[in-house]
Amino acid sequence: MDFLAPLKRKADTKLLMLIADGLGGLPRTPGGLTELETARTPNLDRLAKEGTCGLLDPVSPGITPGSGPAHLALFGYDPITCNVGRGLLGALGVGFPIQHGDVAARINFCTVDAHGRVTDRRAGRIATDVNQRLVQKLRKAVELQGAEFFLETEKEHRAVVIFRGADLHDALNDTDPQVTGVEPHGVVAADEKSKKMAKIAHDFIEQTAKVLANEHPANMVLLRGFARSEKFRSMQEIYGITCGAIATYPMYRGVAKLVGMDVIECGPEPEDEVEALKGSFATYDFFYVHYKKTDSRGEDGDFDAKVREIEHFDSLLPAIRELKFDVIAVTGDHSTPAVLKAHSWHPCPVVLWSKYERTDLCDAFGETQCATRGALGRHPSTHLMPLMLANAMRLEKFGA
Amino acid sequence: MDFLAPLKRKADTKLLMLIADGLGGLPRTPGGLTELETARTPNLDRLAKEGTCGLLDPVSPGITPGSGPAHLALFGYDPITCNVGRGLLGALGVGFPIQHGDVAARINFCTVDAHGRVTDRRAGRIATDVNQRLVQKLRKAVELQGAEFFLETEKEHRAVVIFRGADLHDALNDTDPQVTGVEPHGVVAADEKSKKMAKIAHDFIEQTAKVLANEHPANMVLLRGFARSEKFRSMQEIYGITCGAIATYPMYRGVAKLVGMDVIECGPEPEDEVEALKGSFATYDFFYVHYKKTDSRGEDGDFDAKVREIEHFDSLLPAIRELKFDVIAVTGDHSTPAVLKAHSWHPCPVVLWSKYERTDLCDAFGETQCATRGALGRHPSTHLMPLMLANAMRLEKFGA
Repeated sequence: MDFLAPLKRKADTKLLMLIADGLGGLPRTPGGLTELETARTPNLDRLAKEGTCGLLDPVSPGITPGSGPAHLALFGYDPITCNVGRGLLGALGVGFPIQHGDVAARINFCTVDAHGRVTDRRAGRIATDVNQRLVQKLRKAVELQGAEFFLETEKEHRAVVIFRGADLHDALNDTDPQVTGVEPHGVVAADEKSKKMAKIAHDFIEQTAKVLANEHPANMVLLRGFARSEKFRSMQEIYGITCGAIATYPMYRGVAKLVGMDVIECGPEPEDEVEALKGSFATYDFFYVHYKKTDSRGEDGDFDAKVREIEHFDSLLPAIRELKFDVIAVTGDHSTPAVLKAHSWHPCPVVLWSKYERTDLCDAFGETQCATRGALGRHPSTHLMPLMLANAMRLEKFGA
Repeated sequence: MDFLAPLKRKADTKLLMLIADGLGGLPRTPGGLTELETARTPNLDRLAKEGTCGLLDPVSPGITPGSGPAHLALFGYDPITCNVGRGLLGALGVGFPIQHGDVAARINFCTVDAHGRVTDRRAGRIATDVNQRLVQKLRKAVELQGAEFFLETEKEHRAVVIFRGADLHDALNDTDPQVTGVEPHGVVAADEKSKKMAKIAHDFIEQTAKVLANEHPANMVLLRGFARSEKFRSMQEIYGITCGAIATYPMYRGVAKLVGMDVIECGPEPEDEVEALKGSFATYDFFYVHYKKTDSRGEDGDFDAKVREIEHFDSLLPAIRELKFDVIAVTGDHSTPAVLKAHSWHPCPVVLWSKYERTDLCDAFGETQCATRGALGRHPSTHLMPLMLANAMRLEKFGA
C-alpha cells in the first residue's frame, strides 16, 4: 500500500466493487454444486464470460475472517495490521458515528448472585425493549470523570459502549469471565497509556452495578473487546479516487466510513441500492455496493434461500451495467456455506471486468470455474484494489 | 504464524499429513509423463477425485530446498527465518538426541601435507569403518575445556560433531577452504557471543590434528555448517494439537522432534509405518507419516524404480483410509525428478481431502492435473497447515 500511493494517476473512469456478502459456498453434499453454481445467474455468467475470473483469500488460506478484516482487505488494507477490534465493529454495527480516538467495548447484560458471582452471562437473553429501558436508565444515572460515554442497544442482552475523551487507549482485558460461578474480572491495563481508560471503565462498571442492583435478571454488565478507533489513511488519499458506499446494514456503512468513503443514503431493499447508485453515479469515481442477504441465508444454513438471494443479486446487474462503469468487480467479502451455517475459510469467487482485462475459459460464475478455468488465479483480497485501479488506468508505471 | 496461534480451537478431529519424499518429478523426455503420472495409483487418484488438488512451493518458486526447510514449511514454519543449519541437520540425520543450545557442525576427514595444506578434501573417501575407528580414537583422546563434545560417524569421510555447554553460539565460518593446496581456514567468530565457541572449536581441531597426525590418508578434519539448536515453538503450542511422527529415517524423526512432535516407534518398512499409525491412532490429533524411498530412487536417477515406489506408496492408502481421518493431505516435501538425480525447484503436487473441501476437475493425481484442473491453486507449503486445521474445524474466526 505504501508503494501504491505514489503511483496514483488521474483518469476519468468509474469503478464498481459489488459485494455479495458471504457469496462463496460449498456443495450440499460432497461432489455437488455450491449455492452459486446452483443458482440461475445469467447476468453474472455473462460478466464471467466477458471478464476474468479467479478466487480471493480474504486474510490468508485457511483463515476464516470476520466481516471487518474481510472488508478492509477488499479495500486494499492489510487485514492483519489494520485489524478492527470487536468493540469498534459493534459501534459501527449500530451505526454510531465513531470519532478518531474513541474507545468502544461490547457489553453483555448479565446476572450476578448476592456474592457478585455471574450466574447467567446473558441475563436470560432479555428482550430488546428491556435492554433499551436499561440503557436509558444508565444514560441518565451514570456520570464519568475524564470521559463522555455513549451507550447503545444492540439486541437482546447485547449493547455497546463508546468512551470519548483525551488519551484513551485500549490495552484492557475483557471483564467477561466466560464461565459462570465466578465474579467478573476487574479491568486491568496492560500498558501505561491504557491506565486512564482502565480507571474510567472501572468507574463505569461500578456505577452501572449500583444502577442495576434492583433489576432482575439483568443486574450487571460484562465488557469485552475494548478497541480504539485508529485513523486509517483514506482511500481517497491512497488511491486518489472519490469513494461512495452503498449498504443497507450499519456495520458495512461504518467500515466504509473508517476508510474515508462517503456513505450514500438509500432505502432498505437491494433495488433501493441500485437507485442510490444511479442517483450518485456522477458524484464519485469508485462505488462500493454491499448486498447483505446472501450471507444471512448462509448463516441460517438455508441452502435454497441462499440460492434465491444469489438469483436476486444477479437480477440487479442489468440496471447496474447500464451505467457504463469502466471497471466492475463482483465478489464476496468471504464464503458463508449454508452447510457450515457460518463464515468459512474457502476462497471467494471473483470476476473482474473491464475492456482491458484478458478473457479466460469461464462461461459461468462459480467456484470450480473460477478455480480451474479462470485466468486471474488465486489472490489475497488485498490484490483486488490495485487490479481495479490498473484497469481504470489510474496507476502510473512503477520504476523506469 | 504469530496471528494463527490465538485462533486455535478445540475439536475432536484427526488429521493426517502423508509425505512421499521427493514426490514431484519430471517426464523422462520433454512432453512425456512424470513418475507420478506414469505410476498406477488408483488410491491416490480416488483421493484426488474426492478432494481438492494443487501445487506447493516448499520455499519459493525456483528455489530447490533441502529436506530441513522443506519439512519445516510443511509444518507451517517459515523455512527462511526458521532455517535449520547444516550441522544440526547432520546431527538429526544420525539420530543424535540434540538438546536446546547444542552447536553442531559437519566434519569431513581430509588429507593435509607436511605443510598443513589440504591435498584431498575427502581423504580419498575413506571407508565407513575407518571413519568409525577414527571417531572412537578421537572420542577417547580429545578433551575440551568449557564444553562436552559428541562425535558421530555419518558415512565414508563424513562425520558430525556436537558441542554442548553454556553460551555456545554459531556465528563461525567454515574451516573447509573448498580448494586444495591451501591450509584450512582458522575458526573466527563473527560476533562477540560466538567467541567462546570459536575458541572451543579451535581447540577441538588442534587436538584432533595431533591425534590424527600419523593416520593416512585421514590426518585432518574440516568443519562446516556450525549451527545452534534453537528452540522452536512446538506445533502443539501453536496449533493446539497433539502430534505424532512416523518415519523410518532418523533425520525426519529429528525434524519432527524439533517442532515438538512425539516420535512413534516403528519398524523399517512402509507397512510398519501403517501399523504404527493404527497402533497410535487414538493417541494423537495430528500425524505426520514419511515415506522415504520415492526420494531415494529419484536421487538414484532411476525413473522406473521411483514409479514402483510411488505405486508401493499408493498401495498403503486403503489401510490408512480405514482409520477414518477427518482431514488427509498427501504431498511431497519437494520434487526429486529422476532425470535430475537431485531435489528440484518444481512445485510438488498436493491433494487435500475432507468433507468440507470443494471438489475440482482432477480425476487423477499428477503434476499436470494438479496445475490445470485443481481448485486449490499454487501455494507456499506453509499454507498447508492452516488449510488442514481449517478443514478440521480447529481454527476460530479472525476478527469480528
